[in-house]
Formats: sequence, structure tokens, C-alpha cells
Amino acid sequence: MGAMVRAAVMPAPRAPIEIREFPEPDLPPGGALLATALSEVCGTDVHLWHGRLSGVPYPIIPGHVTTGTLHAIRGSLSGIDGRRLREGDRVAFFDVHRTCGRCAACTVHRTPTRCPARRVYGITDPAAEGLFGGWAEQVYLEPGVVIAPLPDRVSFEAYIGGGCGLLTSVHILERAHLSLGDTVVVQGAGAVGLSAAALARRSGAGLVVVIGAPQSRLDLARRMGADEVIGLDGTSAAERLDRVLALTGGLGADVVIEAAGSPRAFEEGVRLARNGGAYVVAGHYTDTGASTINAHHDVNRKHLDIRGCWGSEVRHFLRALRALERFGGEVPWQDIGARTYGLGGLNEALAEAESLAIPKALVDPRLG
Amino acid sequence: MGAMVRAAVMPAPRAPIEIREFPEPDLPPGGALLATALSEVCGTDVHLWHGRLSGVPYPIIPGHVTTGTLHAIRGSLSGIDGRRLREGDRVAFFDVHRTCGRCAACTVHRTPTRCPARRVYGITDPAAEGLFGGWAEQVYLEPGVVIAPLPDRVSFEAYIGGGCGLLTSVHILERAHLSLGDTVVVQGAGAVGLSAAALARRSGAGLVVVIGAPQSRLDLARRMGADEVIGLDGTSAAERLDRVLALTGGLGADVVIEAAGSPRAFEEGVRLARNGGAYVVAGHYTDTGASTINAHHDVNRKHLDIRGCWGSEVRHFLRALRALERFGGEVPWQDIGARTYGLGGLNEALAEAESLAIPKALVDPRLG
Amino acid sequence: MGAMVRAAVMPAPRAPIEIREFPEPDLPPGGALLATALSEVCGTDVHLWHGRLSGVPYPIIPGHVTTGTLHAIRGSLSGIDGRRLREGDRVAFFDVHRTCGRCAACTVHRTPTRCPARRVYGITDPAAEGLFGGWAEQVYLEPGVVIAPLPDRVSFEAYIGGGCGLLTSVHILERAHLSLGDTVVVQGAGAVGLSAAALARRSGAGLVVVIGAPQSRLDLARRMGADEVIGLDGTSAAERLDRVLALTGGLGADVVIEAAGSPRAFEEGVRLARNGGAYVVAGHYTDTGASTINAHHDVNRKHLDIRGCWGSEVRHFLRALRALERFGGEVPWQDIGARTYGLGGLNEALAEAESLAIPKALVDPRLG
Amino acid sequence: MGAMVRAAVMPAPRAPIEIREFPEPDLPPGGALLATALSEVCGTDVHLWHGRLSGVPYPIIPGHVTTGTLHAIRGSLSGIDGRRLREGDRVAFFDVHRTCGRCAACTVHRTPTRCPARRVYGITDPAAEGLFGGWAEQVYLEPGVVIAPLPDRVSFEAYIGGGCGLLTSVHILERAHLSLGDTVVVQGAGAVGLSAAALARRSGAGLVVVIGAPQSRLDLARRMGADEVIGLDGTSAAERLDRVLALTGGLGADVVIEAAGSPRAFEEGVRLARNGGAYVVAGHYTDTGASTINAHHDVNRKHLDIRGCWGSEVRHFLRALRALERFGGEVPWQDIGARTYGLGGLNEALAEAESLAIPKALVDPRLG
Repeated sequence: MGAMVRAAVMPAPRAPIEIREFPEPDLPPGGALLATALSEVCGTDVHLWHGRLSGVPYPIIPGHVTTGTLHAIRGSLSGIDGRRLREGDRVAFFDVHRTCGRCAACTVHRTPTRCPARRVYGITDPAAEGLFGGWAEQVYLEPGVVIAPLPDRVSFEAYIGGGCGLLTSVHILERAHLSLGDTVVVQGAGAVGLSAAALARRSGAGLVVVIGAPQSRLDLARRMGADEVIGLDGTSAAERLDRVLALTGGLGADVVIEAAGSPRAFEEGVRLARNGGAYVVAGHYTDTGASTINAHHDVNRKHLDIRGCWGSEVRHFLRALRALERFGGEVPWQDIGARTYGLGGLNEALAEAESLAIPKALVDPRLG
Repeated sequence: MGAMVRAAVMPAPRAPIEIREFPEPDLPPGGALLATALSEVCGTDVHLWHGRLSGVPYPIIPGHVTTGTLHAIRGSLSGIDGRRLREGDRVAFFDVHRTCGRCAACTVHRTPTRCPARRVYGITDPAAEGLFGGWAEQVYLEPGVVIAPLPDRVSFEAYIGGGCGLLTSVHILERAHLSLGDTVVVQGAGAVGLSAAALARRSGAGLVVVIGAPQSRLDLARRMGADEVIGLDGTSAAERLDRVLALTGGLGADVVIEAAGSPRAFEEGVRLARNGGAYVVAGHYTDTGASTINAHHDVNRKHLDIRGCWGSEVRHFLRALRALERFGGEVPWQDIGARTYGLGGLNEALAEAESLAIPKALVDPRLG
Repeated sequence: MGAMVRAAVMPAPRAPIEIREFPEPDLPPGGALLATALSEVCGTDVHLWHGRLSGVPYPIIPGHVTTGTLHAIRGSLSGIDGRRLREGDRVAFFDVHRTCGRCAACTVHRTPTRCPARRVYGITDPAAEGLFGGWAEQVYLEPGVVIAPLPDRVSFEAYIGGGCGLLTSVHILERAHLSLGDTVVVQGAGAVGLSAAALARRSGAGLVVVIGAPQSRLDLARRMGADEVIGLDGTSAAERLDRVLALTGGLGADVVIEAAGSPRAFEEGVRLARNGGAYVVAGHYTDTGASTINAHHDVNRKHLDIRGCWGSEVRHFLRALRALERFGGEVPWQDIGARTYGLGGLNEALAEAESLAIPKALVDPRLG
Repeated sequence: MGAMVRAAVMPAPRAPIEIREFPEPDLPPGGALLATALSEVCGTDVHLWHGRLSGVPYPIIPGHVTTGTLHAIRGSLSGIDGRRLREGDRVAFFDVHRTCGRCAACTVHRTPTRCPARRVYGITDPAAEGLFGGWAEQVYLEPGVVIAPLPDRVSFEAYIGGGCGLLTSVHILERAHLSLGDTVVVQGAGAVGLSAAALARRSGAGLVVVIGAPQSRLDLARRMGADEVIGLDGTSAAERLDRVLALTGGLGADVVIEAAGSPRAFEEGVRLARNGGAYVVAGHYTDTGASTINAHHDVNRKHLDIRGCWGSEVRHFLRALRALERFGGEVPWQDIGARTYGLGGLNEALAEAESLAIPKALVDPRLG
């Protein structure tokens, strides 16, 4: 009889996470199994638990960004760099494992993150179909998944500390079109905001300001590269706007990055940007309600660019790895993952992630 | 004693337009006087009359886009093409007569339309300072104003029919970054929307849809180049969305152009655009109230670009002239200016412009 | 015993084309057979015959762009628009049938036309592996090939008249970033140049100039949309430059499109562009020798953008179909394919294509 | 009798530099006099001395980028930030003191660096017309010149060490459109190349490689931020290409920056770039001869973008100041200006600049 794999399953919205055992799968040619070193509990998992995403085929094994070592390979397996991978190699993989390649989003609009057939580890695959999530001792890497060796100087902790938020941040920076010396305001000091601030700092920004809470995250934002932080607690939107204006000679920020996910943040963000500036909206992964803006003042007369930014593509994954290798010595990505839980601790981890007490909880299935 | 010039003056918000006489000005070197052939009553003038723009130094002589013949020149005067201009030449001029060239908008952000010192004929100059508006027998062209000869095949009627809406539309198309075959939805069938539809049609759009009212404007929209029109009267936003989806294989429009100026239009526009599409917002010249959108559905997940578009620059003026020359044979710009009034008829003209009964009223001071 | 399919095979560089018979293939699920209505003899085929492309696995069945009706389908087959295709449907297909999806070109650089594993009908597949070329009674459409129904109002003749040159032209226009009213100079009046001129005209160009030979092609260029034509015969490069300067107020063209394929054309093209203009280089499909330019005058001081443009992607194929449908009523694409040959006439067709006597020869296997 | 100002004059091409005295000028309202602290001898000055630029009105006072303190102001003078300037303030000014604002380059093409009427300190103004060059005890700042206070933490030495090469580099980076993690190869380790490498490093580049000579400059390149250096001495173009390919997984550089100014460098640069990459050409300030490239291999099939980059605009000047303030603590700009000469030493300084022994010589008129 084959070995069994323990996984934490989310049976249904708001139902407690359960540990279940699955048989270690037979691999097709080109398939592989990853022995999970670390996965994460990110804001998306909180949304999943609340049932805020549509079309999720519960029960699922959550955990979309995950890293570890190759446990088993059937046949030959190559990394995205073309080099052969071996069992025991430390690797990361791109969590979007399928897009159709045929819809308008894939072929005409160059926005495969909007492909209706997109499949993402930890979100879109039912547990019954396989180990498609990182909250498990092993993750099934189906043929065709993009796998990259983890660079020697990138630890599992740093990779997962960056996690999906780092990939999103690479996409954000691509959409932001920073010019040398630009002032960048980041709304939110969670996993996305922290990485976005770190990358903005390394992409030529002249001043990086992070707005968020609590103080512990703002302290981490400074260590990630923020020049200035503005606490949400005890300040009004008007006061924060005044502070940004004071920092920008009365003009507003060249680029504002929304990584906060609240309707009020969106309303505030359009006002923080300067005339002719850019506002990249990346924190609204779920529907948290309506925002009220003024099309005259906030968009038209301001000559503002508002740019939605959804998901990530392979190039963001690969550039994220480069960023970790390049800037990991000075950016403490490993500190984003503040606490680590075993599979048995995930109900607690979800509660903690929701409370925003820590930017991110990690999952190490070896902890039990 | 010198000659006198009759002008229609807007003394204060909501006060009746009055005809006043001004002495024909002494010209400085490089200055000129234009004998007005046609000026316009556009939506901005309605806003001015209601006092909806801030900082307007009433009393003013309205009329920002104007054309005519050169009545007097002091010294040598050259057109923007470098050729010498003579008295009697048919000319047009760019209505933005000053920007500072030193503020961040002018020097760093490449958005001189947001220069705080920007001066625009018909809006920013008090009547006491000179003939800076087209609702007058003569307009003072101060040294440095950009003047272009009107091409032979462009009539006064066509130039003013296009008017400021055409300049704005050139800017809109620049911001829209159309790709060959794109579906373009234009919200609004006023002077801006009609020209935007005409230009989209000539810029490679695969399908041009205009949403507006009343039927007479939609008929004109078809003659300007719209493939499809959707009447505002008797349709709901949901029905209009369904119609656009039906025309686009369920995807939404590649590009949506807002030229309607109402908060509801803005809310509707973000929904008409496809995932990864673009929404150019150009109709909100004044504050008509707040709009409610959903940052998740309408921006972030949609990966939408929303681009405010304010004012116009010299290149838009010059490209507008080229467009009139190039496409004037097939685009009936002259039909936008549906009725022509003398200076004595401007109270009536304003009322008519406000009622939206016609897309635009023209002003011919020679009519009395 | 199964049916046999006649195909024209290019056995080796400079060897005569031979007609061979192949067994009608067994189809895998999702595979299909196209009954060829028309294929083409384009400049690439001349290059192939001369052995100017590296890595070609002769013998091959040439003919990369082809159209016809679906002869046989195994299982269910959908068009790129998602609708089910039936035997007898008039269709076109995208000739690039494989890219790897994993190399840097595919995943990071967004340039899949530079994927080393790219496979193109009529060029990269040996005849021994199947009916991968249009010079045959039937073409094998392997599973995954992008197939689109041919719009009702697009004839086989118009589709093939456009052919690969039209797809390339859609890509050229994407790279050209035309602004409304721009002057566009097209170098070359072959299949690429003619379509590029037609599309530039429909994309807002203010003036379209085609440089080429012989006169018959220039006449066709005018019918495609060129405003001005300049004959290569009997003019010097200096004279042609003078002509372009005369047409552009001494400035040079806003955009120059190279569709000529000669080293001299490249040298000339950089000079035809204005300061700050763009030069899209798309005609150098093979190595025809070195060009000599001056990095100071032609690039640096000119602040010129030179943009290479290689191959096409699915979106160019789909946008080409839209262009044919949209503009086919006014653009005589069907006239580019001046003469039609049966499979037995292809040696003659190649000679004629090389002589440039006609822009393009067509292949109709039903002619014998 | 008024005070006299000593200036070093270049009387004619290849004539020795002479020291002449000029009367301290009467200032018009809004004019000012700068007491020169430091000016520079850059590559342009060597070109000027050889007569390689056309239209230069010798005799001239060279020295286009200069810094110092305000010696005299007539009336009120404001910095570009709007704050009032006082005598004694440490300032820098933008060396382009006039563009016409009316030609196509200024108004339509958005390339004012190509304005035919452009006037640049140290190059375009005859000595007879005033103190328009930095090789003088005082520089005349005519009304309208863009003046900025030098930030406290930016020394005269750092500002001039950056000098015109830094402004050009800001423009280069704007044209380069770097993506996070890109490999950037800089050709040339002179004043432009060193600053370009420093800015690329701070703009998100994943790897910065500088090719140049001699070793002392390469050592400085490393201190400016280069990760790798490749010596020109003793290597062939093929060896350098191999080295770049080895550093980029065989692909070539994402972005290549030409700051070398030789025809061979241009030929080499197109080969160093990857498929679909970008090549910014900024070092060819004068005509040093023709380059031979292959339009098929180097441009078309490579899908390469080659972007000429000429001069700088106000925004580059202002962003350069921000960069000096932001990165000056880690980038030793002051070390580019290796030696300082008085006005009497400028013949020697020109010889040294030409020998390339040092990246840049400085001019301090107070040294005599």
C-alpha cells in the first residue's frame, strides 16, 4: 500500500480546517511531487474561508504559493531555465498552472490573468482532484507547471515571506512605470504593500511613503525601504493627504499604489496622486463594497491614470526570483512571515491573518 | 477717435449677457486683431454662465474657440508653420495663450494643461483686460499666440463645428492608444462625443458605438462615422450594457470614451469596458457630483485603465487642423454647429445649448 | 486503401518543385484536414527555394498562409471564437502552430515570435512528418492550431491576397504607434508594403507615401490607399529624400515602414524619418547584406526610434481578419494575388515571384 | 568703472584657449550673475575645440554645465521650485536657455532637444554676446533660465562630477524603460557611461555591466554600481559578446546603453542586446564615421528597439538633482571630476580630456 500525504482541507466557507490524508499520487510523465518546506496563509486564504470568491470548488487544499524540495519526478523534468531538475532540488513554482491560450484575454488582449479558464494552486482545484495546494506535506506539480530552482542565496523563508504578494508587486511595478526620482505612496502595509514599497525603493523612487497599521508593520515597512510611514490609526484621510502634500511640495504623489483593499482606501488614493500621476489598484482582490469618487476632480481634471492590476504572469514570478536574489541581502523578506504553523494550527493562523496582527502566517507541514 | 468693437459680455454668473463696446486696442509688436467670422457656444459656456468654474474673473467675453480673418497686424506675424501671415488671411488660433513653462506640470510632468498659470481665451481673462473672447467682432491675438492658416478646404463652419470638442477629441484619441480593429464605445453625442466617434472611425476602430440622445444627435453620430448608436432615452444602463456585450461577443468594449459629463455615465462606462481595456474620461469639465464604483469589479479585477484627459496642447490643435483637412470631405463637422446667433442672441443660444436640443450653437457677430 | 493527397514539395534548395502523393492522414482527436482553396507563393518561398533560411528541414511542403474549407474533423473542433466548427466551413488558420511557452521569449520578453521552438506551416516541418504546408490539396490542422471562420464577406482571394503580408502589417502598425495625422512612408510595394499602406491609411495617417516599383505595383498601392507614390526606377535615393522632405515641410516622415528587404532601403529609410520619428523594419526576412548608417546623424542626433518587427502572433492574425472584414470593401486585397497557379505551375510561379513582376502568386491545387 | 570678469575663450577651432576680460554686465530685470564655483571640461568641449560641431559662433566661452553661488540679482528671482533666490545661494541652472516653443519639435513631436533655435550655454552663444559659458569667473543667467537651489547635501564637486553626463543619463534611463531585474550593458566608462551605470543600478537593474577602458575608469565604474566590468584593452568584440552571453544565459542583454561614441561600439552594441531588447544610443554627440550593421540579423529578426537619445530637457535636469540628493551618499559622483584646473590650465585640461586619461576635468576659475 502506498504512502499517505497529510493535507489541511478547507471543507466549505467558514467551516473549520480539517486535516485529511490522501494517497501519494501516481505521477504521469513530466509530473513531480514537491515536499513542502513552507507555504503561506495570505489574505486570499482569509477571503476563501469567508467564501468571498466565486466559483471555488470546496473542499479545497489552500496554499497557492509554496516552496520546498522535489520529492519525486517521473521521467525528465526541466526548470524554466532549461536545466534538468533532480529529486532533492530546492524549487519554487508558478502557482498559475493553466490558462487556455485561446480566449481573447490570452491571445488578443495580452491579459492572461483574465483568462476564464485560469487555474491557480490553492484556489481553483477541488481537493478530490489532487494535491493542488500548499497546505499539505506534498504538492502535485502537474506536467507543464513552471518550476524554477530556488537560488542558493534565497531561503525558503525569504521566498515565502515575499510569496504571492511579491509576485503581485512585480506586476504593480510593471504597471507603475516609475520615473527616476518619483515619489511613491503605498497604501497598505500587508504582504503586497511591504513588497511594493521594497521594490519601488529599488526601482529608482525618490521617496517611498507607506500608509498602514499597526505600528509593527510600519516598522517593518521602514526596514523594507520606506522613507516615511503614516499610521492609519489616529489619523484622518484629510490629515494623511496633508502629510503627502507636505512631502511633495503640495503636488501629490507621482505614483500611488493601492494595496489596502478597502473602499475608503480607493477613495483616498485618487486624492493622494498628483495631476497627471498614476494610481495602481492592486489590493481589491475581493469585493469589499463601493467607493465614491468624483469623476471631475479625481479623474478628468486631474488627468489621472488609474490602472487595475490583476494577478501575475510567469514573467512576474521569474522577476520576483531575481529580485529576491538581487535585493534579499538588504530587504528582510523573511520577516514578513512572522509566525509559522503546522497543519494543525491553521484555524488559528487564519484568525491571526484576519486580525492583521501579523503581515503573514507561514505553514510548515513538518511541524505537525 | 478710434473705432469701437462690439462684444457680448457675461457680467456675472446667471446674469444676462450684455452687449458692450470696447475701443479697438492699440497693438504691441507681434500682436494682431482677428475679425471674427465664427465663434461658438459650447458646454463650457453654459458652465461659465452657471458659475460652475472656479476663479473666473467676471465680467468676461466668452468664446474660446474662434476663427476669422486677420484684421490688423502690428509688425511681422508668422503662423506656426513659419510662413508670414497677412491681413485678410483666414486663420485659426490655439485658445490656450499662456502657460508658465516653469512649474512641475510644464517642466517635469509633461502635462501643461495642468499648469496653474494657464490662460484660455474666453475663460480666464477679464473683459477689462482686452478682447480675449470670441463673442466679439474682434479678438485680440496677443504676441506669442499660436496662429495657423486655415487650410483652403476647411470652411469656417467646419472648423467651428469641430471647435474645442475636436481638439479635446484629438487628445482623447492620443490617450486611447487604439489598436487596429478595436471596438470603441463613445458615451455622449455632444460636440466632444461626435468628434471622438469620427476620429475613432478614422483611426482604425473596428466598430464605433455612440450612446446618447436625442435621436437627432444620434443620426448625426452615424453620419460622423458611428456604426451603431444606442439611445439614452428609454433604455436602462443594464440594457445598454447588454447591447454593448452583444456587440462584442460578451467581452465589453476595448476602449470606452466618456464624453457625457454625468456621474451616472462614469459609473456606466467602467462596466462597458472589457477586462484589460481602457476608459478615457474627458467629459467631466465641471463637477456634476459623485460617482459610485466598485474598486474590485470595476478596476482591480477588470485590470482596467482609466485615463483622465484634460484640455489640449498645441499639438492637438495642429492635428485637429490636419484631421479637418484630411477627413472633412467625409465627416460633416459643419453640421455640429446647428444654429448661428448674432451677439444679440446669446442669451437664447445659451438656453438652447443647455437644453441639449442642438449639439452646438455658433456665434457670428456680423449678424448683429 | 486510403485516399491520396497531392502536394508540391520543395526537395532541396534550388531543386525543382515536385508533385508527390501522400496518404490522407489519420487524425488524432481535435485534428482536422483543410481542403485547400488557396495558398500563396510569397517572398519567403523564394527565400526558401534559394536556401536563405537556416535550419529548414527539406524536403518541405511550402505554403504558410492558406485558406479553404474543413474537409474532415475528428471529434469536436472549435474556432478561436469558441464556436463549433463543422466540415464544410470556410476557415483560415494561424500559421504558427507551436511555440514552447517556456523560454524567455515566450514567458518574460513577450516576444514569442522569437521562441527557438517556434513552428510555422510551410517552413519548419519536413514533408515526411505530415501535410504542414499549403501547396497541397489538403493541409493537416494539428490539435491546438488556431482556426477562425472566414467572415462571410471575406473571399478566399481577399484573405490570401492579404496573406502573411497582412499579418505582418498588422504587427507593423502595432509597432508604429501612429498618431492622428502622421505622415507615413512605406518602402516597398510588395505584399507587405501594400498592406501596410492600406492599414496606415485606415489608422489615422494624414499622408501615406509608398516608394517602390514597378509602376503596376505603385498603381495598386494607390488603390490600396497611398496618397503619393515614388517610383524607384529612375530616381536616386537623394531625389526620393527630397520628395519626402517636400511632402513634409522639410521635416521628414513621422513614421517610416521598411518593407523592401534590401540593405540600401534600410540606409535610405533612416534618412526619410524625421527627428524623433519612428522606423519600423519588417522587410528583412533574410540576410541580404550589410547596411552602412551613421550613428550620429541617423540615430543619436535624430533621436530616432528604429524598431525591428519579426513575425506575427495570434492577435495579429485575428486583427487581420477584422481588417479584412472592416476595410475589404474599399481595399482591393484580392488584387495583390495577381495570378493563380496549380500545383504543377509552381516552378514558374516561383520564378515570377522572384522577378517581382507581380506582388504575389496564388496556389489553387484544384487547378492541377 | 565697472568690475571686470575673467573668462577662458576658445577663439577658433584648434586655436589655444585665451584668457580675456569682459566687463561685468548690466543686468536686465530677472537677470542674474553666477559666481562660478566649478565648471567642467567634457567630451563636448573636446569636440568644440576640434571644430566638430557645426554652426558654432567662435569665439565662445565654453563650459555648459556650471555651478556656483548667486553673485548678483536684478529684481526678484525665483528658483524652479517657486522659492525666492537670494544672492549667495548655491545654485545650479539648466544649460539649455532657449527653445522656440513654436516649431514642430517643440509643439508637435515633444522633442524640444531638436528645436533648431535651441541655445545651450557654452556652445551656441558667441563670447561677444555675453558670459554664456562656465569657463569664466561669472556666468550670466538671462531672464527665464531655469535655476534650482543646490540641495544641501549635494556638493559642487558631486554636481559637476555628474555634470552634463548625468543629465544625459537621466534621459537615457527614461528612454530605456527598464524592467525590474533587467541586465543592462553600458558601453563606455566616461562621464555618461559612469552615470548611466549608477542610475541603472538604482533603477532596478538585476545586473549592470560596463565595457570600457582604462582600468582606472572601470574601477570607478564598479564604485558607481557596476556589477561586472569588461575591459576594452586586450579583448575583441567577439570576446566581449561571449562574456555578455555568458552573463545572460546565452540571451544577450535586456538593455544596452551606448555611451562610447565610436562607430565600432554601435556595431557591437546591437549584437550585445537580446531578441526584443532595447539599445539606447546616446554617445554619438559628433560624427565619428559610419557603422555597418545587418538589418536582418541585428534589427529585424532580433525584433530590436534602437532608440537615439539626444540632449536633455528641464525634467532631466530636475531629476538629476533628485538623483544626486537621493543616491549621492552611495554613488561617488565627485570622483568623476578627477582633476581641477584654473582658467589658465585649460589647454592642458583639454589635452587630458582628449587622452581619456581621466573621465572629466573640472574648472575652478578661482584657481587662476
